[in-house]
Amino acid sequence: MESCVVLRLTNTSADFEARFAELLAGKREASEDVDQIVRDILEDVRKRGDQAVLEYTAKFDRLNAVEMGDLKVSAEQIEAALTEVPAETLDALQLAHDRIYSHHKRQLPADDRYTDPIGVELGSRWTAVEAVGVYVPGGLASYPSSVLMNVVPAKVAGVERIVMVVPSPDDVLNPLVLAAAKIAGVSEIYRIGGAQAVAALAFGTQTIKPVAKIVGPGNAFVAAAKRRVFGTVGIDMIAGPSEVLVIADKYSNPDWIAADLLAQAEHDPVAQSILITDDAELADHVAGAVERQLKTLPREEVARASWQDFGAIILVDSLDNAMPLANRLAPEHLELAVEDPEQLLDKVRNAGAVFMGHHTPEAIGDYVGGSNHVLPTARSARFSSGLSVLEFVKRTSILKCNAENLRALGPAAIALGEAEGLSAHARSVSIRLNM
Amino acid sequence: MESCVVLRLTNTSADFEARFAELLAGKREASEDVDQIVRDILEDVRKRGDQAVLEYTAKFDRLNAVEMGDLKVSAEQIEAALTEVPAETLDALQLAHDRIYSHHKRQLPADDRYTDPIGVELGSRWTAVEAVGVYVPGGLASYPSSVLMNVVPAKVAGVERIVMVVPSPDDVLNPLVLAAAKIAGVSEIYRIGGAQAVAALAFGTQTIKPVAKIVGPGNAFVAAAKRRVFGTVGIDMIAGPSEVLVIADKYSNPDWIAADLLAQAEHDPVAQSILITDDAELADHVAGAVERQLKTLPREEVARASWQDFGAIILVDSLDNAMPLANRLAPEHLELAVEDPEQLLDKVRNAGAVFMGHHTPEAIGDYVGGSNHVLPTARSARFSSGLSVLEFVKRTSILKCNAENLRALGPAAIALGEAEGLSAHARSVSIRLNM
Repeated sequence: MESCVVLRLTNTSADFEARFAELLAGKREASEDVDQIVRDILEDVRKRGDQAVLEYTAKFDRLNAVEMGDLKVSAEQIEAALTEVPAETLDALQLAHDRIYSHHKRQLPADDRYTDPIGVELGSRWTAVEAVGVYVPGGLASYPSSVLMNVVPAKVAGVERIVMVVPSPDDVLNPLVLAAAKIAGVSEIYRIGGAQAVAALAFGTQTIKPVAKIVGPGNAFVAAAKRRVFGTVGIDMIAGPSEVLVIADKYSNPDWIAADLLAQAEHDPVAQSILITDDAELADHVAGAVERQLKTLPREEVARASWQDFGAIILVDSLDNAMPLANRLAPEHLELAVEDPEQLLDKVRNAGAVFMGHHTPEAIGDYVGGSNHVLPTARSARFSSGLSVLEFVKRTSILKCNAENLRALGPAAIALGEAEGLSAHARSVSIRLNM
Repeated sequence: MESCVVLRLTNTSADFEARFAELLAGKREASEDVDQIVRDILEDVRKRGDQAVLEYTAKFDRLNAVEMGDLKVSAEQIEAALTEVPAETLDALQLAHDRIYSHHKRQLPADDRYTDPIGVELGSRWTAVEAVGVYVPGGLASYPSSVLMNVVPAKVAGVERIVMVVPSPDDVLNPLVLAAAKIAGVSEIYRIGGAQAVAALAFGTQTIKPVAKIVGPGNAFVAAAKRRVFGTVGIDMIAGPSEVLVIADKYSNPDWIAADLLAQAEHDPVAQSILITDDAELADHVAGAVERQLKTLPREEVARASWQDFGAIILVDSLDNAMPLANRLAPEHLELAVEDPEQLLDKVRNAGAVFMGHHTPEAIGDYVGGSNHVLPTARSARFSSGLSVLEFVKRTSILKCNAENLRALGPAAIALGEAEGLSAHARSVSIRLNM
């Protein structure tokens, strides 16, 4: 293969703003129009339940099952899968689980109850979602680490029923995924996928009881299905292709930085790896190191396509000028591979996760750091956060007035009700005040 | 008008479960298929910007403006609106604002930063969304209280730019809405609505800079547009018709309960008001009181349609048996109009907001209680919460390893990277360990 020509920008160039804006606006996802197909599948599963799911599974996954029970993964199948996983990998999964669990424990929100200056009692009370569906992709992107990242926060939240769906096309199922499900404490597992699995979770079938919320990444069909069932159930964000922004100074090791850029690029031809540095020499060395390392990667083709099509190296005159660019990019992952990352951290406004200093490659966060690796992609860190316990709880607000409070607040409520033309609102207050 | 025949159920009847399930499954929203129209409008505004918005505004709102600047509400227009609002109403709005502000201040999440037992630093850092769009419906449902409820949490969160859009069909704009916007501190106001307003906020136009998140209720076009731009921007929940569940005991005043049921019913012919009680006599008295009060309501027609088509009175043998039904209904508003509401509150799992005791009509919460009145409808309290400061902030997770931490955690990360077939992930760790 030839060497990559990667986009190079310099923030002092006259055309920088225009070219950076172009980079920002770049679309990395083919918007496959699968919406019509998905709508039909959802409707069909809603009407016919198990039978429809069985038929779609036979058609799309080439998996023939007579009844839904056949697609439910049994305790024996899970135990069998565990024996296939090397002890070292199981230990690593357990370590990852325990660290993720400890970190997410800190995210449990506290109830609040207080009496305000005029004596009204107010409060907020958090409760767990009762049942959650976790979508796990099949095939190459069937990652045990993602099972942990989606299931553990739900467990910490106190979700009683966690239903995992994972397609097993041609009857192939990653034993690591079952091992992770077992470690994390999934309640039920079905070998189904696609829009039909999302429909089964959202509407329920004869065999699968409906859930209240669905999380987890999937292909275009899964994403379209989640978007459509939103409202009937809750959903997490719609995951896009992964991305990393590395901000590096002259003290960075170019080989390490290159490895970090490629760790992102190997995910997907539409993944995006960007380096911003104030050191021209480092920029050149990283470009060279990427080229050298690419040639030794098993997933060279994927990583090369990503780097060539969507990678970028941006040279800035000062790292202070890097941060506004970083906040506009709003990256899923932001590595601050600099001597004093704390000083830059203070300026971070939009980023899913920050990896601090020279010894925190993003991959540590993917697996065993403890923080969640389900993070906002495609610039959505401008308005959303990574997956957390908060996605699996909901808040009920509490209001308690006594007769005296109602006399104090009532007249204003009556005035506003009348002003809005809602007389029955006003009356529900005035009737208690003998007005 | 004739008297209403409202659905009456008794939890000890043989057919109760089937009939309650039917009540639960009942659809109250006509699912207007406006998706195609909305898609075209969004695309058009994305491409042509201001000009497209101007044309749709002329077409749908019969409002001819030459340029977008004409649709921007000026400081003078706001001041003029203020003079139209009675002092009593302005005072009530200010009281509501101040109470909402105080309550929401308690919702600001705290940053977290800690060092775990092996020395890894972890953390979470909250920052405000930079720019938010608030949709306010025009016409009859143009409520100043909703302006406060949507804008105040954003202000408390620290959102710098809050852009309000409100259509003014036939040039009619509710001065109360402008007054509320002024009190709450909205940054910019445009007299536009529908899918074109959502598109302008999401994609930006020559005049309107894009926002990162859009909140606020709207009609079917607005809801469809929000669903479609989700991803480009964040959105709040898709609001459905309002609902109340009142749980009342024999100590309840039937006239008060009837007033509360009607306060919900007057919103919308597809609003839903349900009473659950263990007292057959109260049930009868409330039914009678609803009938009497209906006849004196300015919005009698709307309230009667709602009560007749979607209202229900459910008699239970014990209030303990009311709570599982309440949790299945997952109501937006739950009134616990009983002597000991605390005991029932402990059993609430799914509800947007709870109103405690005999002196807390839901309408107090709509206006001046301090809690938010934007709450999950259509059973979505099973998985979502009312609007809060959390909707206007996002969390960045922080991970910081030193060389020693990396040596401790690295091998497990490498094992998982290799197990997932992601060699570049593994290498980004191993290269730092000289492996």
